[in-house]
This record gives sequence, C-alpha cells and structure tokens, in this order.
Amino acid sequence: MDIKRIQVDIGQGGYPVFVGRGILQRSGRLFSSLGLQTSPVVIADAAVLRLHGDALVQSLRRSLGDPMVIPIAGGEGAKNHRSLLRIYDALLNRRADRDSWIVTFGGGVLTDLAGFAAATYLRGIRYVNVATTLLAQIDSAIGGKVGINVPQGKNLVGAFHQPAAVLCDVGILSTLPRRQLAAGVYEAIKCAAIRSAPLATWIEANLAGVLAGKAEDLTHLVFEAASIKAKVVGRDERDQAGRIVLNFGHTVGHALEAATGFERFTHGEAVGLGMVAALDLGVQLGITPTGCERRLSGLIHRVGPLPGFEGIELSELWDAFEHDKKHRDGQLTMVFLARTGATKVLRSLDIRRLRRFLDGFLSAGVGRRKKR
Amino acid sequence: MDIKRIQVDIGQGGYPVFVGRGILQRSGRLFSSLGLQTSPVVIADAAVLRLHGDALVQSLRRSLGDPMVIPIAGGEGAKNHRSLLRIYDALLNRRADRDSWIVTFGGGVLTDLAGFAAATYLRGIRYVNVATTLLAQIDSAIGGKVGINVPQGKNLVGAFHQPAAVLCDVGILSTLPRRQLAAGVYEAIKCAAIRSAPLATWIEANLAGVLAGKAEDLTHLVFEAASIKAKVVGRDERDQAGRIVLNFGHTVGHALEAATGFERFTHGEAVGLGMVAALDLGVQLGITPTGCERRLSGLIHRVGPLPGFEGIELSELWDAFEHDKKHRDGQLTMVFLARTGATKVLRSLDIRRLRRFLDGFLSAGVGRRKKR
Repeated sequence: MDIKRIQVDIGQGGYPVFVGRGILQRSGRLFSSLGLQTSPVVIADAAVLRLHGDALVQSLRRSLGDPMVIPIAGGEGAKNHRSLLRIYDALLNRRADRDSWIVTFGGGVLTDLAGFAAATYLRGIRYVNVATTLLAQIDSAIGGKVGINVPQGKNLVGAFHQPAAVLCDVGILSTLPRRQLAAGVYEAIKCAAIRSAPLATWIEANLAGVLAGKAEDLTHLVFEAASIKAKVVGRDERDQAGRIVLNFGHTVGHALEAATGFERFTHGEAVGLGMVAALDLGVQLGITPTGCERRLSGLIHRVGPLPGFEGIELSELWDAFEHDKKHRDGQLTMVFLARTGATKVLRSLDIRRLRRFLDGFLSAGVGRRKKR
Repeated sequence: MDIKRIQVDIGQGGYPVFVGRGILQRSGRLFSSLGLQTSPVVIADAAVLRLHGDALVQSLRRSLGDPMVIPIAGGEGAKNHRSLLRIYDALLNRRADRDSWIVTFGGGVLTDLAGFAAATYLRGIRYVNVATTLLAQIDSAIGGKVGINVPQGKNLVGAFHQPAAVLCDVGILSTLPRRQLAAGVYEAIKCAAIRSAPLATWIEANLAGVLAGKAEDLTHLVFEAASIKAKVVGRDERDQAGRIVLNFGHTVGHALEAATGFERFTHGEAVGLGMVAALDLGVQLGITPTGCERRLSGLIHRVGPLPGFEGIELSELWDAFEHDKKHRDGQLTMVFLARTGATKVLRSLDIRRLRRFLDGFLSAGVGRRKKR
C-alpha cells in the first residue's frame, strides 16, 4: 500500500498529512511512529463511527491500547457550545490530563468542534485529525482553524490550534454520499484554480474517476489539493494575509450560504457558484481572461447539477454581506484569477459594482450553464 | 506622577506592564502610545465599574473615542461558559471585528474570563488587562493564562493568549477590602520567597505601609513582584517547565481551597498556608534551613489572621490531591525553598510522606502560629 506524505510547515516543527487508501487500519502504528504512544481519546461523528469506527479503534488498540471513544451526533447542528461542554465533561470524567491526546474522527464540522475542545481543554492538549470527507481531507482538517458556531453565525468562536498529524484515508470516501463527494471536488477545483493549472488539467481528464470514487484518482486529487492548502497555510499560520487566496469563490459563496440559511447549498456547491461568479466578474473587470473563465466554469458545471437561485432576493444576499462586515468604507477585498493557477487580489472593489454584478448574476440563474 | 514599566519578554515582541498611581486617568493615552488607537470594548467587573469606571471610561473617551462597556456581575461564580456566551453575544451585537480590542477591567476572575473571550472571539482578538486587585496586578493579569471554570473544577478550560499591555494602578487598591489586599500580599511574599531575598527584607520592613494602602509602598511591591512574575513567565510562555517555581505554596494551597469548596480561604490565604506547609516540610526533608522557615512563616503570619483548619479532614484534603492528578506512580513534584530567594524542585516526593506530613500539619492547626 502506498501512503503519500505532505509536510505542513507550521506550528512547532510542522506536521505531516498522510494520504492513501487503508490508512485507517494503520493509524495506530502511524501515530506511534510520531511519538504519540499513549492510548488516545477518540471524538467521533456518530455516523462515521458506525461505518468506520471498528477499523480505527482496532488499529489504535493494537498499537496504543484501548482508546476512549466519545460519539457526537447531529452534524452541523452539533457544532455549538453544548457539544463542547459535553466533550469537556467526557474528558474530565475520563480524567484526561495535559499529556492526553485526541483523535478527531469525522468531517469538517466534527474536526472543528473536537479540535476546539483540544485547543481549550486544560489550555490546550494535542490532537490529530482523521478526516473522513473529501472536503475535510483537502481543506478543513489542515491549517489549525478550529471553532464552533454561535446563533449569530458560523465559526465566530474558535482558535488556531495546529494538529499533530492529519490522516486522509481515501477508502473512507467510498461511503460518502455523491453530493458530499462533489462538495469536496469544488474545493479541489478551487485549489487548482488559484495555484495549479496542471491540477486543473488533471481534474478535467479524471473527473469521472474521482466522482466514481476510484481510490488512485482520489489519492492523487487529495494529495495535490492538500499540498496546495498546506503550502498556503504554512506561510500564514494565523490568517494574517497570505491565506486570503484560499477565499477564491468564498465572497459570493458565503453570502449564498447565509442568504439561504445554510440549507440549500453544501459549502462546496456555494463555493462552486461563488467561483463562477468571481470568474464572471473577473472577466467584466478585465482581470480574468475569457478562456480561463470558460474553462473553469465549464469544469465546475461538469461536477454535477448545482442548486438554483429561485427565491433568493438581491437584498437578502446583500444583507449577508453587510452582516459579514466584509467591506469597509464602501470597498471590499476579493480574490480573482489572473489566469488558471494564479490569483489577483483586488483590495478596493467598489461594493456598488459588486451589487450591480450580483443583480445580473442572480437573475441570469447561473445554476444553469450559460449559453455562449 | 511616576509610572514604572516592566517588559514581559513573551509572545510577539513582548508587552509592557505599567505600575503606579493614577494610571487609570492616563490609560487612553498609554494605549494610544502602544498603537491601540481605536475605541475599545471594555469588559468590566460590575462592582469595579461602579467605583472606578468613570476614570477609565473618561480617559479612553478623550484619547480613543467612546468605548463600549460590557458589565459582568457575580464574582468567581461568573467565571463560566454562560458569562462567556453573554460576552460573545455583546461583542457580536456591537459588531466587534478582528481589529477590535478588549480592555478587561477587574480582578483575576474577570481578566481570566474576558481574556478567554478575547482568545476565542473570531479566533482571537487583542486585549489589555487593567488589573484592579493586588493579586491580579502581581500575578493573574501577567502571563497570558486565561480561562473559565467548569462544574468539575477551576480553570479547566482556557487558553494561552498574551495581553498587549497590563495596567496596574495602585490607587485603585485603596478601595480593596483589607482581606483582598492581604491575599495579594501572600502572593508577593511568594515572589520574594522564590526569587528575591531583598524583596523579602523590604516586605518585612514595609508591611504596615503596604497593608495601610500607602501608594509608594504598593507601587514598589507591585513593581518588584510583577517583575519576578514577568521574568519567570517570559522564559516559559506555555507553562512547560520553568513556571513551576510559581507553584511554591500552591500544592497544599490548592488542596486546601478545593477541600473547603473554595469558600473558606481566599486564594492568597490558601497560598500563605501552603507556603507555611512547604517551609515546614522542607525543613523536615532537610531542604529548607530552619532560619529561612522561621523567617518566612513569621512574615506570613504577620500579614493577618489566617482561617483555621477546623473540620477539614485529611481524607478530604487527600481527595483534592487525587482529583487534581497532581501525582503519578505514587510520586509528586513539589517546590521547596533552598533558602530565601532560591527554590529547589523535588520531582519525586513520595506521596505517603506528604500524607503523613499533612496529617500532622492539619492537627497542629497552623492557622495559629507555632510556638518555638
């Protein structure tokens, strides 16, 4: 079995991301080789635990002794302070101390929540992410951003707390619903768009294999996309400036999610549509070449059907911007593409220009592919 | 007016601690000179706000514009996740963003709570401590340990988040109840005990002035004790090893507090008694010279009457140790004095030895001064 390794140059000495199939079954030995040699506390998405818990727990047991397991039910809705208090409670009942360490086991919601518990329990203990969705493997599990949602919005409370390792077993992705897999593909396309034309070409050629869950294709995709994420966050641990390129597609994407109560679109779909918007506006502003826009918009639409804009009013979308405080003095910072693989960050986009664009964008209904 | 400045070499570039009388009235200009030039959010102990809020708010208003003020009522009982959620709520309602900064205004409970809010709101924003108790000025406001209590125990959830500055206005201490002032004096004696024989001599000579609230005496005491704290934490930002000397008196002190439900003793009193215990045991173990023990125990008892041990059973005290997980494999790390101003850390104290000692310690009733 082939395990690929990416080094994230961040935090104290950095940490590895392992990518491949069947890593779950070798997780105990991998952790042990990293110096994590006591039995961990596993904080797991309850649904993931039912499907893949045995493989993880048995491997941990063989190499490190019986782990303690804390199941968390409820998906995105569980990413709140009530779940956090339940985790603290479980850790205290199990007498977890400063030398204890946590294995997070799930998608981005779970790794954010459990990572934040690790960041704050006894002022911070070690943790590793075993990411079980494509989106988490190439994005949320890497970079140390952890946190919870509050009623007013997502990820408004949190910390920077780097994991000691990230495990991406692409074998797990075979049980992922198609729409969840697609959500990750949009983020992979984003990575290609901002940093790697060759990866864009590869995705164009291998999209079918990826969406069919072919292990070698997924391994390649996760490795390449996670490498891009690792490189960007490695230069900007605390999200001061460099990470902004990762927001390509997210300006409009976040607003679409918020305007629809985070229910209509998966995060990946919203980013997909947000990239289509940023490409379109980029062309209008003379930043993005038409060929680049056509190529990447085409690829995005090939991933699968995107939810439409029915019923979304411009005013709702705009409220989401206002609430996000994304702009200042009537200007906004937004990421565009200068070409496939290269960004151009515009720091003074007039928000009236954006609003005019969005008006047309919504009414054109880009959920359907534009005719040319 | 004379303002003394200590530099804490920790975090990104370190930060200053300002000590003197009347600093509150100059706080706005001080913050402005540090580059904090927008109007802050003040999170304040409600009782402190009533007494000293005007001086702070007016100074901030003059230099930085109208601050927003969030009052927190309830003392130690307020150091929980409910207060934390209220603070997040207030920050979100006021649209505090990543460039916002917080002024904490109160004693250790408040600065811990509000500092933890600053550590986690939007994954961390800047904050400064305006410490209003002697204990906070020389201890809790310096070093970046922030957090909250959970039902199972104190400070079990938290973070390391260094302030941008600490302001210690000794003028505020004039409204501090005598017992709260004394609580800080015990921690000051601890600083002298572990690092500075000259400071111990100075406290012996000036204890009356300190307890009478003489501004120049308090300025000297805070400056000297805070300098010691700053030096120790500067070498050990995340409490890996070097900070352990600050635990002198805390091994037995913590247990006394926990065994009495954190109600009988102030933290300072518990540390005072804990130091008496550590000095006594130190002599028995041949680590601490008898002269040093007599001198410092004598000084501790001169500060004021200490609550007695009536009704505290050895088993309760021992349960507090067990719960704290302070020991491992029957051995305990405990800080002793080799002489006044110099520590000796014993890493393998047999817990049976400690238990035997505590049995005698409790029944001797060291709340009263031993006859010799």
